[in-house]
Amino acid sequence: MTEVRVAGVGLTRFGSHPERTGRDLFAEAAASAFADADVDPTAVGELNYGNFMGSLAEHQGHQAPLMAEAAGLACPATRYEEACASAGVAVREGVRTVRSGEADVVLAGGMERMTNLDTDGATEGLAIAADDLFEVRAGMTFPGAYALMARAYFERYGGTREDLAHIASKNHENALPNEYAQYRREVSIEEALDSPPVASPLHLYDACPITDGASAIVIVSADYAEEHDLDASVAVTGTGQGADRMALADRDHFARTPAATDAATMAYDDADIGPDDVDVAEVHDCFTIAEVLAIESLGFAEAGEGIRAARDGLTTADGDLPVNLSGGLKAKGHPVGATGGSQIAELTRLLRGDHPNSGRVPDAEVGVAHNAGGTVASAVVHVLEVAE
Amino acid sequence: MTEVRVAGVGLTRFGSHPERTGRDLFAEAAASAFADADVDPTAVGELNYGNFMGSLAEHQGHQAPLMAEAAGLACPATRYEEACASAGVAVREGVRTVRSGEADVVLAGGMERMTNLDTDGATEGLAIAADDLFEVRAGMTFPGAYALMARAYFERYGGTREDLAHIASKNHENALPNEYAQYRREVSIEEALDSPPVASPLHLYDACPITDGASAIVIVSADYAEEHDLDASVAVTGTGQGADRMALADRDHFARTPAATDAATMAYDDADIGPDDVDVAEVHDCFTIAEVLAIESLGFAEAGEGIRAARDGLTTADGDLPVNLSGGLKAKGHPVGATGGSQIAELTRLLRGDHPNSGRVPDAEVGVAHNAGGTVASAVVHVLEVAE
Repeated sequence: MTEVRVAGVGLTRFGSHPERTGRDLFAEAAASAFADADVDPTAVGELNYGNFMGSLAEHQGHQAPLMAEAAGLACPATRYEEACASAGVAVREGVRTVRSGEADVVLAGGMERMTNLDTDGATEGLAIAADDLFEVRAGMTFPGAYALMARAYFERYGGTREDLAHIASKNHENALPNEYAQYRREVSIEEALDSPPVASPLHLYDACPITDGASAIVIVSADYAEEHDLDASVAVTGTGQGADRMALADRDHFARTPAATDAATMAYDDADIGPDDVDVAEVHDCFTIAEVLAIESLGFAEAGEGIRAARDGLTTADGDLPVNLSGGLKAKGHPVGATGGSQIAELTRLLRGDHPNSGRVPDAEVGVAHNAGGTVASAVVHVLEVAE
Repeated sequence: MTEVRVAGVGLTRFGSHPERTGRDLFAEAAASAFADADVDPTAVGELNYGNFMGSLAEHQGHQAPLMAEAAGLACPATRYEEACASAGVAVREGVRTVRSGEADVVLAGGMERMTNLDTDGATEGLAIAADDLFEVRAGMTFPGAYALMARAYFERYGGTREDLAHIASKNHENALPNEYAQYRREVSIEEALDSPPVASPLHLYDACPITDGASAIVIVSADYAEEHDLDASVAVTGTGQGADRMALADRDHFARTPAATDAATMAYDDADIGPDDVDVAEVHDCFTIAEVLAIESLGFAEAGEGIRAARDGLTTADGDLPVNLSGGLKAKGHPVGATGGSQIAELTRLLRGDHPNSGRVPDAEVGVAHNAGGTVASAVVHVLEVAE
């Protein structure tokens, strides 16, 4: 099997870009990735592109050939839609395409524009990631869904709003030096606790923001990197994907995310590592409680113990296993169709040593990315390792 | 490389299903495919699912895990969106997944609900497959776009409305015995010519209808088929994909579809065949002119000669190369996210000998499917061959 490397990564600043189109955002991310990789767009064999709600936010479907054109590519282009895991799936298929020898160079990533919708529009747009018939029509929104998951967790394992506030505060602190982050300001535990309620027990600072942005990753075979003398020092050694029932009510328990557990098991087996080998992780903290569920699914904490991980220092920047050194979805922002690619970009920078937070993990050799769709009805996990 | 077989195919009746949900339609197609294949849903390693406008028509994104659940699967599930080529791309990725050994059994196909939208809603929904900024906002619709392509063709190569009417009449005749077809009635040349204008030179009977429906294909490795004693006598020997600039105005000429030419070249090379080897084809005739462009891109006719192919009898049921024996999108119907899978299902039935039109092509051994997105900004071509 062909060994897969990340040759370059590109991101736009995450935030509000009212003056930009989606194609413009993705073109910027792609150009950055090509410059970072020292690869020409004409070398790309396939584009794997993630987008979630472009047909609602920009009245634009069929975005893959459009984005290929914007990025200067002349190759087959495919759009993946897996709600907030769209770019994670796009990256995964890119890894598999290079592994199988179908292409030596794949551009994978994604884009989302959301801030051009008003709050109601964005809330309704995001809701299409849940079960329309059995959840959305009953009034469920994503803050509501994750609030149910948090309540179920608290009831089953215990936990407090203060535990969650430690996650928000940690991720905001991590985002401070990140030039791509939407929110680069500290949020204290008190400020998080005092923020207005959204869906009890979740308050405003338990939620990630609405974000525009794009991500792009140049994925190459190790042979291609060597032949072209590329500085592609990070390998993708594991990839996994899982699915679960769509509606929360159809699952065994609201406070477990088995799709992510399945994806993690598959990715760890693929990379021939275990959770103890992981040095740093980027996980899908669309809400603070989601980070708890993620680190438990990834095997970083036992069920019921993830809630204390930030508070006890396991997942802080100076902890044994820093989580979301980018700032996470919480503070860096969450342009849903781009997020899975952004996580790979941030991990790559962390492992290469050129992330502003690389100094917090100077010896990191193994990183894990966890990208989830909806209430984790789908999940994608990747393992990245320093290759040389 | 692992040899790939079609183990089973499933379709819903194409037409108007106001009483059905999307998940219900896909579950029916999947169950039919599993019964046809004699494969249990639990054997499926991955679901590749195509859908175009579900976020508009059913307020339902993130459909892949939902459809996996509806089909009784417990495996990773991914949605592909490539406008009207969504299921074509889903099948292509399924073929590549089985070839690479990532899974022995993949379920691929798609679903679309469209008739629950009114005509304006469907027209606007379909328009998201074009360039919103540079085409749709200028007033372009898909009938308008294909009318421009027809006009450009007529100007460059010649051609008449009567030539196009022969295509409509042929495909309606082909659909007569097809139990899955939306329209099973003859349309005479005169009736087609007399139908009301939609976008000159295209009239009503130059256009495919608005359709609900689903398709599902069980794709397996030849080894799996042998081990499980499956009757999987049709092989997928070639797959190709191409992309073009999104907006018609950015292309060299409106009357050529190079994305399809690229996809065909890739698929023929993959199968190690040429257009002369093809016995039967299913092509993307969303409008009559689209069939002309398709058969030229596939190499069945020289540029400028495809317009006469139906009229001169090349592509009729008793011609040298019957095209759209299913009835095509024109008469069988076009649930856009399902169509690419439907073409594979129809070709499989034709090559196996159990299609109601198999008697028209008793010696057919090689079939080609051509699935296009938008104004062929994307295209997927597959080659199927009788394997034993």
